[in-house]
Amino acid sequence: MIMKKRLSLIALMTGLTGALMHPPLGAQTSMDTHSEPAIFSDQDLGVADQLRTQGLQGNGGFDVVEELTTLIGPRLAGSPADAKAVEWAKNYLENAGFDRVWLEPATFPTWHRNMEKATITAPIEREMVTLALGFSPATPAGGVEAEVVMLDDYEALEAVDASEVEGKIIFVRNRMERARDGSGYGPAVRARSLGARIAAEKGAVAYVIRSIGTSTNRFAHTGSQRFDVGVRSLPAVAISNPDADQLERVMGLGEPVSMHIEVDAEFIEAYTSHNVIAEITGSKYPEQVVAIGAHLDSWDVGTGALDDGAGIGIVTEAGRLINALDQRPDRSIHIIFFAAEEIGLWGGRAWAEKNKDNFHNIQVGAESDFGAGPIYEMTAHVSDEAKPVIRAIHQQLEPLGIAFGGWGGWGGPDFRPAGAYGLATIDLRQDGGNYFDYHHTENDTLDKIDPANMVQNATAYAVLAWLAAQSPVSFGSGPENMRQ
Amino acid sequence: MIMKKRLSLIALMTGLTGALMHPPLGAQTSMDTHSEPAIFSDQDLGVADQLRTQGLQGNGGFDVVEELTTLIGPRLAGSPADAKAVEWAKNYLENAGFDRVWLEPATFPTWHRNMEKATITAPIEREMVTLALGFSPATPAGGVEAEVVMLDDYEALEAVDASEVEGKIIFVRNRMERARDGSGYGPAVRARSLGARIAAEKGAVAYVIRSIGTSTNRFAHTGSQRFDVGVRSLPAVAISNPDADQLERVMGLGEPVSMHIEVDAEFIEAYTSHNVIAEITGSKYPEQVVAIGAHLDSWDVGTGALDDGAGIGIVTEAGRLINALDQRPDRSIHIIFFAAEEIGLWGGRAWAEKNKDNFHNIQVGAESDFGAGPIYEMTAHVSDEAKPVIRAIHQQLEPLGIAFGGWGGWGGPDFRPAGAYGLATIDLRQDGGNYFDYHHTENDTLDKIDPANMVQNATAYAVLAWLAAQSPVSFGSGPENMRQ
Repeated sequence: MIMKKRLSLIALMTGLTGALMHPPLGAQTSMDTHSEPAIFSDQDLGVADQLRTQGLQGNGGFDVVEELTTLIGPRLAGSPADAKAVEWAKNYLENAGFDRVWLEPATFPTWHRNMEKATITAPIEREMVTLALGFSPATPAGGVEAEVVMLDDYEALEAVDASEVEGKIIFVRNRMERARDGSGYGPAVRARSLGARIAAEKGAVAYVIRSIGTSTNRFAHTGSQRFDVGVRSLPAVAISNPDADQLERVMGLGEPVSMHIEVDAEFIEAYTSHNVIAEITGSKYPEQVVAIGAHLDSWDVGTGALDDGAGIGIVTEAGRLINALDQRPDRSIHIIFFAAEEIGLWGGRAWAEKNKDNFHNIQVGAESDFGAGPIYEMTAHVSDEAKPVIRAIHQQLEPLGIAFGGWGGWGGPDFRPAGAYGLATIDLRQDGGNYFDYHHTENDTLDKIDPANMVQNATAYAVLAWLAAQSPVSFGSGPENMRQ
Repeated sequence: MIMKKRLSLIALMTGLTGALMHPPLGAQTSMDTHSEPAIFSDQDLGVADQLRTQGLQGNGGFDVVEELTTLIGPRLAGSPADAKAVEWAKNYLENAGFDRVWLEPATFPTWHRNMEKATITAPIEREMVTLALGFSPATPAGGVEAEVVMLDDYEALEAVDASEVEGKIIFVRNRMERARDGSGYGPAVRARSLGARIAAEKGAVAYVIRSIGTSTNRFAHTGSQRFDVGVRSLPAVAISNPDADQLERVMGLGEPVSMHIEVDAEFIEAYTSHNVIAEITGSKYPEQVVAIGAHLDSWDVGTGALDDGAGIGIVTEAGRLINALDQRPDRSIHIIFFAAEEIGLWGGRAWAEKNKDNFHNIQVGAESDFGAGPIYEMTAHVSDEAKPVIRAIHQQLEPLGIAFGGWGGWGGPDFRPAGAYGLATIDLRQDGGNYFDYHHTENDTLDKIDPANMVQNATAYAVLAWLAAQSPVSFGSGPENMRQ
């Protein structure tokens, strides 16, 4: 019996170990490619192999995010640091020796935080760790104080009768679930992005949420709210998860609970920042573009190391790896640093608008914007004709521990607006199990990045961009591929 | 070959599992007791067994620390919350049904934080996460700005020539090492407790340290500095570890680095708080006392959940478990909530002074003040005559996973002053591997406590206190046991 138990344990362990091992390079792992003719030339595959080798010997672009976070730090779109970051990026990419570097404008409304404060005032007094949410209006000077009504989640907020919350401060306590793919974010974040305006409609005086984040460290997580000129909203703050626990405990005492909320913040109607783009010019089809990107802006807290300094480092390193080759890619490769992602995908929108008549020439878009975890799978949204090519590209990513995750995805937030014009996209999905521990907090700093993971990421983007540029077929971007 | 490897793996795993298992209750595990006559009566051992059973079915005093941190929160000695905490504690212990509850005064100088700010001003601008250190004087209004000199550690500070730091801001970058027993704290903390006054002697204008803590989360760790009336010191702050990393990177740019430091804080010459003591009166020797304690005060950030709300919960639960027995202990048991530990062991000092002619009647002191990790070993400082009794007590703690760690220890910080009068002490040493991630930060909140660990702790203190009260011999406290 004991022996049997031990053997079972071995079987289990072997199974686990097997799951972590990657099949040898060149192994036939996908059913639908094993009998097809070669898609890429031996020479192009040799270059992919070379990129893998050189990528894994590199630093993954850690030097880039180190310099960005050290010299510039937080860089909220529309802040003075935004302009500094754009200038830094242009110089950095020019010095890196790309063929062309240029700026493309993006204009957007933005917002500036002066201060925020959230305090339980009865039946006990306690100051909470808090951050105003993006686009929160200011309270009247001196703040507002009112009784707190606690609601479970966004659905409860939609359902509550106005008579129960009129004149009150609404606290929505919904908790984000941790998941490798970040799937806990979507359900939880509606309380942040849409809650305050619903609370306003129902006559509340301020709006408080448990932070949309997975950590129990005492940081509040800020983030954007949907903003439309002329739609009334409320002063809105997130409190840290331990403070939300405390507020729940105080609510549980059974006495009326009051809070004082004060926010000072300003809207800026229109600011023009820039997407920064570097090009490796294609040798055969320079007008055709493989676009890899990340966003240069960050929230105004922390230093935007994971969000999205890591992505900036990863795609820059991918570009450097390709730019250092003796060979030039057939198509052009663009490394795009998007502007103003955090406050409404404004760089992505501007890029989509600028290219709206040109998407048949954009081979594919892929953005790195999910921190610095390892990439565990690849998905693609491409034409049926291109699917064998995607499979063949995936074979070259498999040695990096990347599985094929099926058809779909949007290529990252900044390529979403382009999806409406039919952009083909590839997602290299990162393990985001701890991404939302740091997301939009003061704690998003350089030390949270494991450079080894950036190396895997940058290598994957280099191989992907190279092969996408060498593809014998178009990935199918264009009007026929439009989606909502 | 594969089979052999697998078997080795099993051997390794079995070995590891074995190390985590505890010998069965009653097994002979210590060499020097196995041939001696029984030290405790079967009845007393039966009660110890009952305490273990009931303790492990309890909540470890989690309800106590939950109430303390929820209702009172941070409670710096000498602050309004200190008085509230004392009042809460007295009521709590009275309601718990102990035989007697009383207060004993402790008078001390204290300090109040108004604000602090630390900013790199050149060659880049960056505000740091910072906390003033306890007893830091204020800067002149508007703060001080000067060039930064970076030093490796306390020894480098002692060695540096005054001409190199005169008129400068000194930054000491020493890093605390993580260790289960907290042994990294001692070497690192001198930079905090003694650095500013040395920096003052050498003509610096402000003093900055990397936080004495092991976490990379962006919290500054405050803590006390040695304070003597009339000894000049400097405005002194700790910056969070990620901010210290940033400052090091900026220093590494090779250009002169300037910082701006502003502190507003006040000294309070004398405040009187109180130790709060609950007694289970001994049935045979009521004048003889087994003292278990924790400290009621905390720093003014976080809610003092780990430091030392957990200890307050643990010793309260231990007392409740004993107080719920049908049997009464032979000696009295005192549950002591010490005042003003954080800012200079003032409660411990007052207790030692009050009992200075009475230590022959204090059987032993044992304090819980190292967070809420599991207890992994017991040490004792007792007379030789008492050592077999300690071994016999340890046998009753072994089922809780507690090893015998040898002779020594001070019984915890608040019993240190009593050591000078010859107090016998026992240390139940907790795993503090992550204690200094939270120590003296805004992040020391209730969610950091695993109630299961408190259960083990409280049960151990109950068994210890019970058996110490039933010991056939004195543990040897008194003038003959004095130590420095």
